[in-house]
Amino acid sequence: MNSQPDATIVNVLADRYASAAMKAVWSPTGRIVLEREFWIAVLKAQRDLGLPVPPDAIAAYERVKDTVNLKSIARREEVTRHDVKARIEEFCSLAGHEHVHKGMTSRDLTENVEQLQVWRALALVRAKAVACLHRLAMRASEGRDVVLAARTHNVAAQPTTAGKRWAMFGEEFLHGLERLDAHIAGYAARGLKGAVGTQLDQMTLLGQDAARVAELDTRVLRHLGIPRALNAVGQVYARSQDFDTLSALVSLASGPSSFAKTLRLMAGHELASEGFLPGQVGSSAMPHKMNSRSCERLNGFHVILRGYLCMAADLAGDQWNEGDVSCSVVRRVMLPDAFYAVDGLLETFLTILNQMELNTAVVAREARHYLPFLLTTTFLMEAVKNGVGRETAHEIIKGHAVASARDLRTGKIGRNDLVERLAQDPRLGLSHEKLDALVNAAGEQTGTAGAQVDAFVAQSAQWAQRFPEALDITPGRML
Amino acid sequence: MNSQPDATIVNVLADRYASAAMKAVWSPTGRIVLEREFWIAVLKAQRDLGLPVPPDAIAAYERVKDTVNLKSIARREEVTRHDVKARIEEFCSLAGHEHVHKGMTSRDLTENVEQLQVWRALALVRAKAVACLHRLAMRASEGRDVVLAARTHNVAAQPTTAGKRWAMFGEEFLHGLERLDAHIAGYAARGLKGAVGTQLDQMTLLGQDAARVAELDTRVLRHLGIPRALNAVGQVYARSQDFDTLSALVSLASGPSSFAKTLRLMAGHELASEGFLPGQVGSSAMPHKMNSRSCERLNGFHVILRGYLCMAADLAGDQWNEGDVSCSVVRRVMLPDAFYAVDGLLETFLTILNQMELNTAVVAREARHYLPFLLTTTFLMEAVKNGVGRETAHEIIKGHAVASARDLRTGKIGRNDLVERLAQDPRLGLSHEKLDALVNAAGEQTGTAGAQVDAFVAQSAQWAQRFPEALDITPGRML
Amino acid sequence: MNSQPDATIVNVLADRYASAAMKAVWSPTGRIVLEREFWIAVLKAQRDLGLPVPPDAIAAYERVKDTVNLKSIARREEVTRHDVKARIEEFCSLAGHEHVHKGMTSRDLTENVEQLQVWRALALVRAKAVACLHRLAMRASEGRDVVLAARTHNVAAQPTTAGKRWAMFGEEFLHGLERLDAHIAGYAARGLKGAVGTQLDQMTLLGQDAARVAELDTRVLRHLGIPRALNAVGQVYARSQDFDTLSALVSLASGPSSFAKTLRLMAGHELASEGFLPGQVGSSAMPHKMNSRSCERLNGFHVILRGYLCMAADLAGDQWNEGDVSCSVVRRVMLPDAFYAVDGLLETFLTILNQMELNTAVVAREARHYLPFLLTTTFLMEAVKNGVGRETAHEIIKGHAVASARDLRTGKIGRNDLVERLAQDPRLGLSHEKLDALVNAAGEQTGTAGAQVDAFVAQSAQWAQRFPEALDITPGRML
Amino acid sequence: MNSQPDATIVNVLADRYASAAMKAVWSPTGRIVLEREFWIAVLKAQRDLGLPVPPDAIAAYERVKDTVNLKSIARREEVTRHDVKARIEEFCSLAGHEHVHKGMTSRDLTENVEQLQVWRALALVRAKAVACLHRLAMRASEGRDVVLAARTHNVAAQPTTAGKRWAMFGEEFLHGLERLDAHIAGYAARGLKGAVGTQLDQMTLLGQDAARVAELDTRVLRHLGIPRALNAVGQVYARSQDFDTLSALVSLASGPSSFAKTLRLMAGHELASEGFLPGQVGSSAMPHKMNSRSCERLNGFHVILRGYLCMAADLAGDQWNEGDVSCSVVRRVMLPDAFYAVDGLLETFLTILNQMELNTAVVAREARHYLPFLLTTTFLMEAVKNGVGRETAHEIIKGHAVASARDLRTGKIGRNDLVERLAQDPRLGLSHEKLDALVNAAGEQTGTAGAQVDAFVAQSAQWAQRFPEALDITPGRML
Repeated sequence: MNSQPDATIVNVLADRYASAAMKAVWSPTGRIVLEREFWIAVLKAQRDLGLPVPPDAIAAYERVKDTVNLKSIARREEVTRHDVKARIEEFCSLAGHEHVHKGMTSRDLTENVEQLQVWRALALVRAKAVACLHRLAMRASEGRDVVLAARTHNVAAQPTTAGKRWAMFGEEFLHGLERLDAHIAGYAARGLKGAVGTQLDQMTLLGQDAARVAELDTRVLRHLGIPRALNAVGQVYARSQDFDTLSALVSLASGPSSFAKTLRLMAGHELASEGFLPGQVGSSAMPHKMNSRSCERLNGFHVILRGYLCMAADLAGDQWNEGDVSCSVVRRVMLPDAFYAVDGLLETFLTILNQMELNTAVVAREARHYLPFLLTTTFLMEAVKNGVGRETAHEIIKGHAVASARDLRTGKIGRNDLVERLAQDPRLGLSHEKLDALVNAAGEQTGTAGAQVDAFVAQSAQWAQRFPEALDITPGRML
Repeated sequence: MNSQPDATIVNVLADRYASAAMKAVWSPTGRIVLEREFWIAVLKAQRDLGLPVPPDAIAAYERVKDTVNLKSIARREEVTRHDVKARIEEFCSLAGHEHVHKGMTSRDLTENVEQLQVWRALALVRAKAVACLHRLAMRASEGRDVVLAARTHNVAAQPTTAGKRWAMFGEEFLHGLERLDAHIAGYAARGLKGAVGTQLDQMTLLGQDAARVAELDTRVLRHLGIPRALNAVGQVYARSQDFDTLSALVSLASGPSSFAKTLRLMAGHELASEGFLPGQVGSSAMPHKMNSRSCERLNGFHVILRGYLCMAADLAGDQWNEGDVSCSVVRRVMLPDAFYAVDGLLETFLTILNQMELNTAVVAREARHYLPFLLTTTFLMEAVKNGVGRETAHEIIKGHAVASARDLRTGKIGRNDLVERLAQDPRLGLSHEKLDALVNAAGEQTGTAGAQVDAFVAQSAQWAQRFPEALDITPGRML
Repeated sequence: MNSQPDATIVNVLADRYASAAMKAVWSPTGRIVLEREFWIAVLKAQRDLGLPVPPDAIAAYERVKDTVNLKSIARREEVTRHDVKARIEEFCSLAGHEHVHKGMTSRDLTENVEQLQVWRALALVRAKAVACLHRLAMRASEGRDVVLAARTHNVAAQPTTAGKRWAMFGEEFLHGLERLDAHIAGYAARGLKGAVGTQLDQMTLLGQDAARVAELDTRVLRHLGIPRALNAVGQVYARSQDFDTLSALVSLASGPSSFAKTLRLMAGHELASEGFLPGQVGSSAMPHKMNSRSCERLNGFHVILRGYLCMAADLAGDQWNEGDVSCSVVRRVMLPDAFYAVDGLLETFLTILNQMELNTAVVAREARHYLPFLLTTTFLMEAVKNGVGRETAHEIIKGHAVASARDLRTGKIGRNDLVERLAQDPRLGLSHEKLDALVNAAGEQTGTAGAQVDAFVAQSAQWAQRFPEALDITPGRML
Repeated sequence: MNSQPDATIVNVLADRYASAAMKAVWSPTGRIVLEREFWIAVLKAQRDLGLPVPPDAIAAYERVKDTVNLKSIARREEVTRHDVKARIEEFCSLAGHEHVHKGMTSRDLTENVEQLQVWRALALVRAKAVACLHRLAMRASEGRDVVLAARTHNVAAQPTTAGKRWAMFGEEFLHGLERLDAHIAGYAARGLKGAVGTQLDQMTLLGQDAARVAELDTRVLRHLGIPRALNAVGQVYARSQDFDTLSALVSLASGPSSFAKTLRLMAGHELASEGFLPGQVGSSAMPHKMNSRSCERLNGFHVILRGYLCMAADLAGDQWNEGDVSCSVVRRVMLPDAFYAVDGLLETFLTILNQMELNTAVVAREARHYLPFLLTTTFLMEAVKNGVGRETAHEIIKGHAVASARDLRTGKIGRNDLVERLAQDPRLGLSHEKLDALVNAAGEQTGTAGAQVDAFVAQSAQWAQRFPEALDITPGRML
């Protein structure tokens, strides 16, 4: 075994797929700094509320707050076997003071800082989603009138347009975005509630003065920047709140996932590809291949998110009394990794939206191949106008359609000849020219597709207007 | 094998646990009627928009709409191998007309009717949840000032009150209710969108008149009573909408589940029981036993809901093109069964809330046992007031506390003697009377517990005010 | 609301999809009979071991054991609020004796009977899986030498054969079957272990005679027919045993699920269809459509099984002390419903295997279209034989391949012209005839596909030999 | 935001919880070396089978195989956008040759190397599980005859022994170990099967000589050391094989998880604790607290494993044609992280088993408190022996038991007085001495508990005998 026990094992999701901004939210170093800022905020509030704090202590803490030495902290944890205690000691040792964490329990620190990480990560996700939505709306506009054979059961069914297909997935994405946005709006912070949620230690510290304790809590929440606060929590905030976060991410990722699955199907028919970078070709052994690797990866991220969702679901509804740490190891993994995964998913989505290509010639060729089948009801109505009985016309057309389909499948013919068959059947009174004209007018057979695209684009524009800075987001270079 | 192949296999969740109202939403018979009402609504709208409909057809359909013969429909399905076609034939045969389902595809019927079922089921769930919240708030009020040893890591940690504990789970429940309510507010119906979502067939039927097609859709949605409509759907509405429904149910169920788990723990210490019906005792073999069977069942329902959530998550993000029926068998099971499960969960919760008993004497006895441990920081401060050095006092008290705890565990003593030990240690200067007084004043050591209960009760009252009829809901008799 | 609260809600999975044999295992009536047979077996063993049992009691119980009145039992349960007690009373009342269930706790009855149901259901599943495997091997044989364009990333990659593709899914299925078979072999029954697993009550009943208690247990297990027994159980057998059952079912279902997904993809290219019954056509509106409804349903069953797996996983590892009933409601749903689902999945699989059609003409047309791309490495080696430098040849061929692929996508050409391009490039020295010959010899480019098919067929045959009666299983008529 | 985009984000599961041995299996560096060894093995086999390989090439590759520079590889990947290609280039550049990876597709490398990692990780898990089983059997022996109040529904039910309780969880664990062992025995490697599974490129390379291709495959599998080989795979081995791996891990982890949950419950009653390191006390603020942090963590690992199981289940049954990379990102995360998690779980389990303490005095005190309730059936039989009618005795005893239980709950009494009540009731004829004697003889009321412990210990010993080296495994120091 070529073991290298000292070598660091990197987090694959962060390392390969997540953006720098998302990594900054969850990085161990970044978290230490968030904690220290939190401690300083509490200390300042305690001082303002009358607790004795030496005049230079706060400045001393602020001076060292960005000096993060993970190894030193790890050494302290090996002695104390308590992660928070190790971080308190390190910070105090650096500052030369012992004033932070007063009247606080570990969870007063960790719950709030983790909520702050979730809160910031949610905002990053929302912004990137808006960027994706904007690009998707552009794609829908581009394809608004490109006739495409819509498929149900993976078989051609009726004409639609490429733009309408993108708008369909776009609408699902938009609903996911709404759900995420509502989750952010309702997100509530735990605040300084003490070991079992009664704020006992802060009450003791502040002379049993409930008003001052409430004011302390308010100031701490203001520091976090999370507008809404919880009330009757225990040691921890309810874990169903994490479940709500995870389910919002899964919901958001579902539109892109369906889109990617369909693009993989379309690539199989060469109707579209997720696109290549300039100069890129497929595999050297098989240069014709344009593999939908990014779409496949996007679907993989959705699987990953569903796995973390299961973890979150298993923590929800399992609180014993005022809480414990059975959720701790799970949340250490699930929270950052789910956000790395959704970030990677949206990065991938954005890249695909930027690079994808619709092979309009192939789309048109396919549509033309299937249109005679898809327009049988239109042919029927024309025959009826010619005075043919409805049931008669139906039987005749059905007979020819089934025969054409069968002959295509059995190889008797290589090209759809339904129009010819119908034109040659004198009972219908439909000329080849008439039938061709109907097929060529397929653009008129796409119903309200165009109007739906317009409505979707308008809805998307509202999000772009609300988060204009999101439009500047560009994806990192894909591995 | 004693097989009885003809015997009906009942749905256990519906049969044993769900309320009559919830069963009515999902019953096969009820669904047939919903479908027929939907067809009639479409037919009326089509007539009003100018389509030729014989004057007596609508009346004929209305006359027979409640005449549901499931066996006859099943026989038709065996011939047609198409469930919707079988139901059309049955309805038309009963009415003696063939006018329903014009310009409609199967999914125009089934998607909308299933959404209507979900919509009505969601409303039932919300009402029952409000009923539970109201009872829980009453319990929190009752226990507002009952001092209880709060536990973290399942070990006594600090004083709290029973009411605050209920309010803690109540707040989680309240957030679940908010999430459900928001889901209902955003729930959007598919409407009449045709085979691939372009409304082609209704456009054809209504002479390519987009305004009339839109008006038809509007009227149909008005019939459903679902205010919000989808725009650019495919054959189906996006399955992440079902996922949002399921995740809202799991979220709602999490507060009750944590509550039930904690009540099971409390029953193990005889602090509380879920209560018995008048006259009921425990098992005949062990008459002292008061088993938390209902709480255990409630936790079981949460497991069930998480399983259906997984099914919903697996359908989300897996749409191929404009859709297919790979989700069909899943939704036939998952949607009704998840609603039966959440209904059974809330029925069980309501029953527990009605019958549960707090054994205040045992609660007090336990609190008194642990209070000396829980109040060591208070003792410390008193010793410091007496002039003892802080570090000195800390060491002395810690020494006695650890010794007491150890002697209890090893059986050297059978009762917590920490107060005696501290009183006998002359270094601290704390009399037995003083220490006893501090222990007896534990009610003052519950911090902001009471205020939090009041806040929770006030929040609950807003829901009761918004849904006053919910307060009349009473649970069915539990099996 | 058109509620019909009295109407029975049927179990959809049982009613629409499961076979009569599987329903017989899980039917409420069948279960009552299994329980009564179990009680009688215990009673007989107790009598044989010396307990006083009136001579006519056993006969009296046997006489009435098949007289099952579910309504009467339900009425008793409403009084006793205890399901087992209700069933004891009913049985005793019918028999006119009170001798069953002596020294037994409820779980002594229910655990063993439920394990018996699982055991029998597992055997049914294994037999049906063998039937499917046999049919799949036949399909693999049929397609052993039918050249097919294999796809990776859903894009044509190299030649394979249709039979090899079926064998590939067949091998996955075969591994699932092995896993199921091993699970059956290791399945162990709980036996008569008493309220907390110590056999206390049977010890008391049999005069503290451990040997007689062991003999009683042995006889009871012999009645069940499950060869292996558990030793140190609690009130319940460990719920990870149910998890093992469920994970074996998911594993078994995975090969068929991948097969069905691929058949849906192939149907999209008209390479194959799942087949229709004689006389059946596609939808009346679109007669050309051959929808893969059964394959989609099969994939849906896999989603359902994964949901029940989640429930089973959530019960595993969650035993409190000697056990309780928090798993009860979950197992009432999960166990029968998972078996109905896997039964329906295999019924569907068998139907597809019986009816599916490979459109060999379309397969050949597609292969021919892609072969020039797939054989570029072969062309390269031929050019090298002609004296062209390896790198030179590679660059030339790659240039033509990329150009052909691009022109196809942009619609400049409608048919793959790579062979022509290569033939016309004098630098390669490859004639059109030579290149055509290579393309036509594609059957020789399928490597070890044929041998792999043969190996798979041989492996399958061993299962057919071991379970010859399985080959007679035919699927019920599909809805 | 204090972002440090360059900082490495470590894998938390590996960094905090996994052993060095497990990290070595999955470390990026270790994997590179495994790949290179694999390439060399293939190259040697190709040479032995007659392919021209320069004499010094193999030595050159072997010389540099341990020179791993991840940064250099990453730079190459940014250019090629293909991870395997980057690693080939790096290895060849180091060796100064271009001979590895001939006739291989990327998956020929990665599938086999990943299977090798899984295979080695499975062996590590089995060994550590045997170590745990051995310690657990020792604990069961120690507690073989320590009478304990067994609980069902978390309420005292009947006497058992502490050893029997450990054996109960031990038996579940033992079944998980059997399942893991069977999975290892059936684990099959993919081998060199080519781009779509037909071995086309090796056939071409080895002159269409199927025997030589088979021999190559055999040699490669011999290098891996995995005895069993797959036959008809596609580009990838079936993903249900990963699912089987994951479900075996969840199964294995379930016994420990139930054990940990029960120990948390016992700690709440102070019956046992998971133990502290020498010198360690509970939290400084609450020195009496002995928190079950390791048990809680163990339960957390089980939740994590179930989440990865969901990912594996979602990949199973989702193969499109001969395969693609939609599973790739999932497996990069799920496989190593699941093994880190199960490794951490077993490390934690081993630590608990080493340090846990049974507070026998508290156990005895609790048993004595409940025994009068638990022995009511024994009292009954004694009264019957005294000539009291069975029904009469039952009613009298039940009356007293219910009254005692009620008075305890209402605080009327503080200690179980059932024995006194029964002794004072002249109708039963049972003296205080007699009743006390029965209570004191509770050790005889534990049925077959001792024998079950012995059987479990014997079963465990067989595993220890089979894997003697496992007994030397000691857990790393817990954070």
